[in-house]
Parts: sequence; C-alpha cells; structure tokens
Amino acid sequence: MKAYTDMTQDELRALHSDLKAQYKDWQDKGLDLNMARGKPGKDQLDLSMGLLDVVTSQDDMVLEDGTDLRNYGVLDGLPAAKDLMAGMMNVKSDQVIIYGNSSLNVMYDQIARSMTHGVNGSKPWAKLDTVKWLCPSPGYDRHFGITEWFGIEMITIPMTPEGPDMDMVEKLVAEDEAIKGMWCVPMYSNPQGVVYSDETVRRIAALNPKAGDFRVYWDNAYCIHHLYDEHPTLLNILDECEKAGHPDMAMMFASTSKVVFPGAGISALATSKTNKDFILRQLTNQTIGYDKINQYRHVKFFKNVDGLKAHMKKHADIIRPKFEAVEHILEEELGGLEIGTWLNPRGGYFIHFDTLPGCAKRTVELAKDAGVVMTGAGATFPYHNDPQDTSIRIAPTLPSADEMAQAARLFALCVKLAACEKLIA
Amino acid sequence: MKAYTDMTQDELRALHSDLKAQYKDWQDKGLDLNMARGKPGKDQLDLSMGLLDVVTSQDDMVLEDGTDLRNYGVLDGLPAAKDLMAGMMNVKSDQVIIYGNSSLNVMYDQIARSMTHGVNGSKPWAKLDTVKWLCPSPGYDRHFGITEWFGIEMITIPMTPEGPDMDMVEKLVAEDEAIKGMWCVPMYSNPQGVVYSDETVRRIAALNPKAGDFRVYWDNAYCIHHLYDEHPTLLNILDECEKAGHPDMAMMFASTSKVVFPGAGISALATSKTNKDFILRQLTNQTIGYDKINQYRHVKFFKNVDGLKAHMKKHADIIRPKFEAVEHILEEELGGLEIGTWLNPRGGYFIHFDTLPGCAKRTVELAKDAGVVMTGAGATFPYHNDPQDTSIRIAPTLPSADEMAQAARLFALCVKLAACEKLIA
Repeated sequence: MKAYTDMTQDELRALHSDLKAQYKDWQDKGLDLNMARGKPGKDQLDLSMGLLDVVTSQDDMVLEDGTDLRNYGVLDGLPAAKDLMAGMMNVKSDQVIIYGNSSLNVMYDQIARSMTHGVNGSKPWAKLDTVKWLCPSPGYDRHFGITEWFGIEMITIPMTPEGPDMDMVEKLVAEDEAIKGMWCVPMYSNPQGVVYSDETVRRIAALNPKAGDFRVYWDNAYCIHHLYDEHPTLLNILDECEKAGHPDMAMMFASTSKVVFPGAGISALATSKTNKDFILRQLTNQTIGYDKINQYRHVKFFKNVDGLKAHMKKHADIIRPKFEAVEHILEEELGGLEIGTWLNPRGGYFIHFDTLPGCAKRTVELAKDAGVVMTGAGATFPYHNDPQDTSIRIAPTLPSADEMAQAARLFALCVKLAACEKLIA
Repeated sequence: MKAYTDMTQDELRALHSDLKAQYKDWQDKGLDLNMARGKPGKDQLDLSMGLLDVVTSQDDMVLEDGTDLRNYGVLDGLPAAKDLMAGMMNVKSDQVIIYGNSSLNVMYDQIARSMTHGVNGSKPWAKLDTVKWLCPSPGYDRHFGITEWFGIEMITIPMTPEGPDMDMVEKLVAEDEAIKGMWCVPMYSNPQGVVYSDETVRRIAALNPKAGDFRVYWDNAYCIHHLYDEHPTLLNILDECEKAGHPDMAMMFASTSKVVFPGAGISALATSKTNKDFILRQLTNQTIGYDKINQYRHVKFFKNVDGLKAHMKKHADIIRPKFEAVEHILEEELGGLEIGTWLNPRGGYFIHFDTLPGCAKRTVELAKDAGVVMTGAGATFPYHNDPQDTSIRIAPTLPSADEMAQAARLFALCVKLAACEKLIA
C-alpha cells in the first residue's frame, strides 16, 4: 500500500473518484447500523437472565441478621453486596457504599454535594468564582457533561499510552487552587482502552494539589471487563493515596451495568472513612435507602467475586471477536496508508481511532450518510472541542459480528475518503 | 372519668402513685416494640411477592416499541409505567417522569438543582443570602431534614383540620421573596392524616408569591392509601394551578414504596411541561436512565390503576384493624381525661397525638423506658422544635395487632403519667 501522503495530486484525484464510486455503492446498500454507544448486545444481556428469578421466594426475604429485604432500612448497602462490589473493585468492604442503578448518578451526586456543601468542610464550590476540572481526553463524554452542567471550567489533558500527561497534571494542580478534581477511567479508558501504568497511578496518588478539596474521580467502570485471560493490572488508587499521605484524595466508582443489565444493576463508591462519613451525612438526608432486593439478586446470582469474574469471561467470549473483526479490517484496509492510527485494547467497550488532523468530523458525517451512526466526533473532548479534529470512538459491542464487519469496512472507506479530500490541494 | 384538670393536688398525687405502680408492672414485662417509623408489616409485604417473579422470561424483555428492558435508554420512564403512575396520582401521563426507588430522593434532587441552577432560569439559590421554606407542622421529618441540610430557613406553619393555615401562608409568600417553597403532604398528611380541603387546595393554587421561583412540593405519598372504601378526595393541584394562571407552581411526587416494597418500588414526579423540560436538562446529565425492568414489573403486576387500587384494599384490610385498635384504646383509656387529643385518620400511615403542653418529650421518654420506641417527640417540627412540646406520632403498621394493642395501652399510661407529673404543683 502506498501512503496517501506520498501520493501526487493526480494520484489522489484518481483515488478520490474511485473511493467516491465505492462510497456510492455502500450508500445504495441502505445500511442502518449504530456504533455510537457502548451498549451490550442481546447475546450479552441473555447471559444474566438468571438474575431475574434468583430472588423470588419467601425464604430469601429475611437475611440471617434479621434484615427484611422488602422493608425500609440499610442506608449504605447489604454487607454481602459490599463484599461483592469490594471484590470487584479490589478494595476493602468497609470502604464501600452501595448505591442505586447508576454510577454516573453517584459521581453527579458527589459534585452536586461539593457545590452546595464543599468537601469535608471546605467552602461550597457554588460560592467560589471559578471551579476547574482536569479532563484527560479523549475521555468519557458523560463525565464532561456533568462538569459542564455545573459550570465547571474543563481543562483538556492529553492522554498518553500510560495515562494522562502527568507532567501537565502535576504542574496545574500545584499552581491553581481552583482545580478541584480530575476525571479518570484508569482501566481500559473510555474511549482509548488505555490502562494507567503503575507510575501514573503513583504520580496521581502523590499529587500535591493547591486545593485541599481536590479529588480524583476514579471511574473504575471497566475494572473486570477484560477481553483476554491474560490482562493488565491496575494499582489500587486508595492504597496508593494512603501510602502517599493523601488518604482522602480519591473516590472510586463502579457498577454492574455492563456486568448484568444497563439500568438494572447496582453501583458502588469506595473511598476513605473520612470521605465516607461526610458522604453518609448527605445520604441520610437524600434517601431512606437503595434497592436491597436487587443487591441481594446480585449476591445470590454471583455468590462471590469468582462468580463475577467467570461471568465476565462469557461477556469477553461474545465481544472479543467483534473487537478483533474491527481491528482486522482496519489493518487490512488502512495499514500502511498513514491516514489514521488506532489502539487494539485489551478490555473495555471501545476502539479509538485517530484520523489525520481535521478529518474526524468529516469521516463521521460520511459514515452517517451511508447509514452507520458513530459517536459524534469531538464528543470525547470537553465542550465537544477536539482541537485537532482527529478523534473517533468506535463502539463494537451492539451490532452483530457480521454487521460489525460491514460497518468497519464502510468506516475504513470513509476514513480514506475524508483523508483524500483533505490531501487534495 | 374525671378530667385531670379538675382534680385536686391530693387526688393527682394519689393518682400518680397508682400510675407509677402500673408503669412499674409494664416495665417488668420487658416489652420491645417499635412504633417509630411508618414501616409496613410483614403481612403487607407478603401481598406483593408476585412482583418478584412477574418479569423473568425472555418474552418480556423486548417491548412492542422495540425497547429492550435490559439495555440503556428511556430516560424519563416507560410509557406504560407513566400511565400507571399517572393513574395513581390522578394526573396526565405526559406530566410524569418515572424515577428510581425513592421519591424522597426526587424531592432532594429538585432542591439540590434549584440551589445550583435556580428554577427555570432564576438565580441559583446557593447564590442568595437567604432561602426560606414554609413547613406546615407537624409534618414529615425527612422533608425538614432535606431543607435543613441545604441550610434553608424553615418557617413553621400551623396545621388546621383543613390543611396549612392559609392566612399565614398567603401573607408570608406575598411579602417575602426569600420564601422559595412549601412542603405539603396533602392527602392523609404525615403525621396527622389531614386531607387538604378543596378551599385549601384552591388557595394554594391561587397564591401570589413574591418569588417567581416559588414552588409547592406536593408529596402525594398517600394518594391511594385509604383505610376505608368511603374516602375523602383531593383536588388535583396541577389542574388548579393551571386554572389559577400558575401552571408551573406545583410539583407532585409519589412512589410505590408503601404499595409494594419500601426500597424496591418506583417513584414519580408530575408537573407542567415547562418544569419537566427544565428537569430533563438536568436528568440527561445525571443518569442514563432508571431501572426499566422494575418499572415493567409494576406494569405487569398491576396491569392498570384498578389493579393498583384493588391491591391497596388488601393493605387497608391488614392495617385498618391496627389503627382502630389504637383509636379504641386511646378512647377507652384517655377519653374524658382532657390530657390529650388525637385524630382518627381515614388513611395514611400515622395517628397523631397531642399531649398537654410540655408533656410530649416526657411521654415518649416514659414509653421508651418501658420498651416501646416512638418517633422522637419534636421530630415532626422544623429543627425538631415543637414549640408547645405536645406532638407525638404513632406508627401503628409494623407491630402485630396484639403488640399494637399492648403498645397503645402502655402509651396511654405514659400520657397519663406525664400529664400527672405536669399537673402536680
């Protein structure tokens, strides 16, 4: 394959009409596929049907400690549910609070509370002129949605293959008291699939922020979502923060949304005792308690963290071929052309693709006009502003393997077409 | 029976030693009963076991409109769940948002959002020097807990048998722009069981608050929780507000916590389109969606509002005898003594008792020391400050009928003893 950048303008023009003809053929196929969101496919959902009838009998209703699952009580989660989620997150049970169905909602609540009540006694952020937040990017659009909603000024931090650019992070938090937090998806980051290196985790734990109420929001969304048996490991941020003398600096989040059913799972937060005590003061006013029956469904269905991990292997067996199909097609279609780069993740829900500068929006537009919806280009950056316009998130899990292959083939064509358009003077 | 107030000091002293002896006998029984919280009893919980296995089959997972209950999507609730909750609340389906398991959490969120984002474009309350709230009292302790948590200054409004003292409410909201809201439990108010009269509802709807972002928080917690077939009715506050030219002034809340299982039900908010649109702007940042499987459990279990109402009759059959037992014992023990007054509610979860001024705390203390825990005296007032120290909330649902009768008998004795102590010079 000849790299596009090595082609003459005449070669590019000839290529362009050829690609346009191919694109026209694809349009005529009338595809209607969605690679936009990280939704599990139907076959994945089928894996957890047993969750729905595992707790239906009278015998299950009253636990040994006398708790009736069906009545009020138990603010911070059933002990057995804490054990399960602690195992999943690799933390201690007494660091855990079990919440409702959405970890996003838990993160939202942490920021909402900090706005009105500060952090463990600090000044409420709503009383400050400016609150800023570090946003390693590309990142999770819904994280950025929360900080934007609260009027928090988002600072884009470039991602490296080891995690966020720590030189920049260290410098910024040490200088600017308005910086109150940082989004992290440390394991199989959304969307790149980057796993933070041990050094990155230790440097985060060792941060010396000017703001005493600076918090690392550690969204461990994909902590057990490995695609391969042999998988990378992630240092425990709570332990590292404690060792570094900042025991309260991190809050870890996770949920079973992509373990069982999105919307019908349970979520959890893990953090230090000091943070937990402060959070519970809010929680006691916010709700009487979360859904204990659903907590117990999880406990009974999985039994323990080994059950959870065995279940995740079944997910991996379903989605790994989809990831590999996309990766294979990208290599086949785009290898050597020097018009895009991508990572082959070892877990998580996304494949991230970088086009030539200035080509991401156009590529996504072309795909859409041929019937394949992708996440909006730029969505993975604060304010939807991808400064280089290169970032595209591919979500391979929802379509079938055949559909996925078709969509990936079309996507590669759109990458070529957009690059060609760009390079023609 | 001779009224205590007509007794001589000698008579009171003799009575006192007699009551003390009786009290000692009760203490020796070693009771251990809880009349503190409005929790359903086990037999009530058993009524809804069918909810747990009504949605377990593959056939139920995908709705006619293509929605897979197990996947992401549907932010504001399944249409069929909206219909069900609209029927329960007597509102229109398009006024409804379905939330998670806790209506208290929904109310909390409304205030939290108003603090950081104002109401439909008004200045965020967190930026104001003072925010005040009207609290008809006695009222629901957890309402007052929310406003207190947000540092909102609570103003106690006396309750009448028709609802809040509307002369006072009208005057205050017209004068003071800092007053931003009002708690209401309009149907079988917690704890008195008062149903707001039509005139009260119309006067609330016709309020002319100085604050444009004043909102009535209409907690319709007991809208279908009738104890008797023949039951009072409540005007629809949303309709009345619209008629009065204030279509956005009220937000109605309800849940199925005391219909199915506390903690495992669904909750709902009903309000105007303008309010809903603003709320949805928050919601879209706060969560990806609530538990649709649990919503569908409700739809399939109850089918429609008639199913819901038939189910509530079964609850009434279980708890009505408990209410009546308490009422009967109070009448038998205290009738004519002029040391307390109470209302016999037609629905809801509580019986409210007023002691002589200055006797509520002591009565609750005496009950506790003989093994019967009641809601802390004063808990039903803002800042736990019952100015007259008369208000006691009795929650008759959790104990068995026999236990309830015992507890009520002891309670009556404690009322007598406290009154006697008070009247002895």
